Amino acid sequence: MSVKLDGNIFVTGTNRGIGLELVKQLAEKTGQQCHIYACCREPEGTGAEALRQLVTQYPGKITIIKLDASDEDSISAAVKTVSERIGDAGLNLLINNAAINKPPQHATLADTGKKDMMDVYETNVTGPFLLAKMFLPLLQKAAEKGSSEGDKMSCKRSAIINISTIFSSMEKCPESFAFAPVYSYRTSKAALNMLTRCQAEDFKSRNILVTAIHPGWVLTDLGGDQVRGWR
Amino acid sequence: MSVKLDGNIFVTGTNRGIGLELVKQLAEKTGQQCHIYACCREPEGTGAEALRQLVTQYPGKITIIKLDASDEDSISAAVKTVSERIGDAGLNLLINNAAINKPPQHATLADTGKKDMMDVYETNVTGPFLLAKMFLPLLQKAAEKGSSEGDKMSCKRSAIINISTIFSSMEKCPESFAFAPVYSYRTSKAALNMLTRCQAEDFKSRNILVTAIHPGWVLTDLGGDQVRGWR
Ligand SMILES: NC(=O)c1ccc[n+]([C@@H]2O[C@H](COP(=O)([O-])OP(=O)(O)OC[C@H]3O[C@@H](n4cnc5c(N)ncnc54)[C@H](OP(=O)(O)O)[C@@H]3O)[C@@H](O)[C@H]2O)c1
Ligand SMILES: NC(=O)c1ccc[n+]([C@@H]2O[C@H](COP(=O)([O-])OP(=O)(O)OC[C@H]3O[C@@H](n4cnc5c(N)ncnc54)[C@H](OP(=O)(O)O)[C@@H]3O)[C@@H](O)[C@H]2O)c1
Repeated sequence: MSVKLDGNIFVTGTNRGIGLELVKQLAEKTGQQCHIYACCREPEGTGAEALRQLVTQYPGKITIIKLDASDEDSISAAVKTVSERIGDAGLNLLINNAAINKPPQHATLADTGKKDMMDVYETNVTGPFLLAKMFLPLLQKAAEKGSSEGDKMSCKRSAIINISTIFSSMEKCPESFAFAPVYSYRTSKAALNMLTRCQAEDFKSRNILVTAIHPGWVLTDLGGDQVRGWR
Repeated sequence: MSVKLDGNIFVTGTNRGIGLELVKQLAEKTGQQCHIYACCREPEGTGAEALRQLVTQYPGKITIIKLDASDEDSISAAVKTVSERIGDAGLNLLINNAAINKPPQHATLADTGKKDMMDVYETNVTGPFLLAKMFLPLLQKAAEKGSSEGDKMSCKRSAIINISTIFSSMEKCPESFAFAPVYSYRTSKAALNMLTRCQAEDFKSRNILVTAIHPGWVLTDLGGDQVRGWR
């Protein structure tokens, strides 16, 4: 990642896994004026120690924001806090990274219940849905500012990246299903892809770029051993 | 529809719209031994009058089953009732037709809240998910019986049809989005497609066919004027 981003970036689920690494690399590789709002559920908890270390390591570059993606009030509060800080500058990049898989790992049909389906959808889809909806005015502000730049749509201007997965691919389902059935996770991420398509259409006239990416397999708590046999 | 089906068929959301017409055509066009379990939320309500008329019109062919797809207990109870009646014969065809769109019609991002997203997912995805899971033993029974037939996988043996929609297509989203943003509906139906892919993989070794279909645009309460401009 060598983009010289100088704007405001908001990333969810940053106390561990891919989110933590994203914040680290963004702090390392972005420009001086770049500020990262790094979210986690328990900013004071032991699970956020590595993130708090990054804050110390890169002074003035990272602000930790308390956010539970499954809780609408928590999302509202986080958006309000960040909006007050950012003000007219706008938000340049929203990365919806936080996600869960329930039950964890290889979960088969027999392992999966209605609550798993609902909980995973709540965090993985309604979280990103509400964040984009509530941040829209700030994303728009950043997009408008960028009008003089060469790039019509980019994260230098205003963008949303929804972190998806290869497991959301309808086409690739047959080859990966046996290694990780994970019904709740796959259905939620297919829905997230559709959300991304809708947002891309909805926001394109405002010059806000919206995309979904599969980060590749990463040995995190979530990625874990799940697909070791597959990839 | 001219399939000479002689087995047991279970269809959800049959008191109006496409579901009602499905039951009518199945009653008309299937074989003598075919029995249709036609579900609705309020079998005694005024909204089920047309369905009750079909029961009278085709004596011994249709049984109305009370079912709310958003309620796990209601699904369990319906599956239990049908299992007791069907017994060893097994279930040959499960059609997940019941669905909602919230808020109704053209719903934009601004109109759509978290509860809409959750409610629509609950009915449109967890309903079909639980029905397939709970009916699996009966579907398997029917699939095993069919082993002597020429068709390896078909609804003559055992099949699940999840009623999807063109609005679930990632590819076609750009051309239809402006006419009907319906975020909650599109994301739920994309998830339903993924559920279908997972089930197809999961159940293929048991010779249970699983597929999703788009019925085309139909002027129902749900289809309504929503896409008049588009198609
Ligand atoms: N790892 C892979 O191989 C892989 C592959 C494809 C896609 N992905 C995607 O990449 C993203 C990150 O995955 P990961 O492997 O880094 O997962 P991870 O190690 O399990 O980390 C998940 C992060 O999300 C947070 N989170 C979970 N539920 C949350 C909620 N309700 N509100 C706020 N934060 C919440 C967790 O915080 P807590 O510590 O509070 O739980 C944690 O920070 C996910 O979207 C995942 O689907 C990963
Ligand atoms: N119409 C179209 O143009 C079109 C196009 C593409 C796909 N489809 C799909 O075709 C299917 C049927 O649509 P439709 O147009 O016939 O819709 P509709 O006229 O609105 O009928 C929906 C049916 O589903 C039932 N239902 C709703 N929520 C339920 C729940 N929680 N539990 C059980 N039943 C419930 C309704 O019962 P109540 O009377 O109790 O509400 C009704 O019988 C849906 O899956 C829809 O997505 C329709």
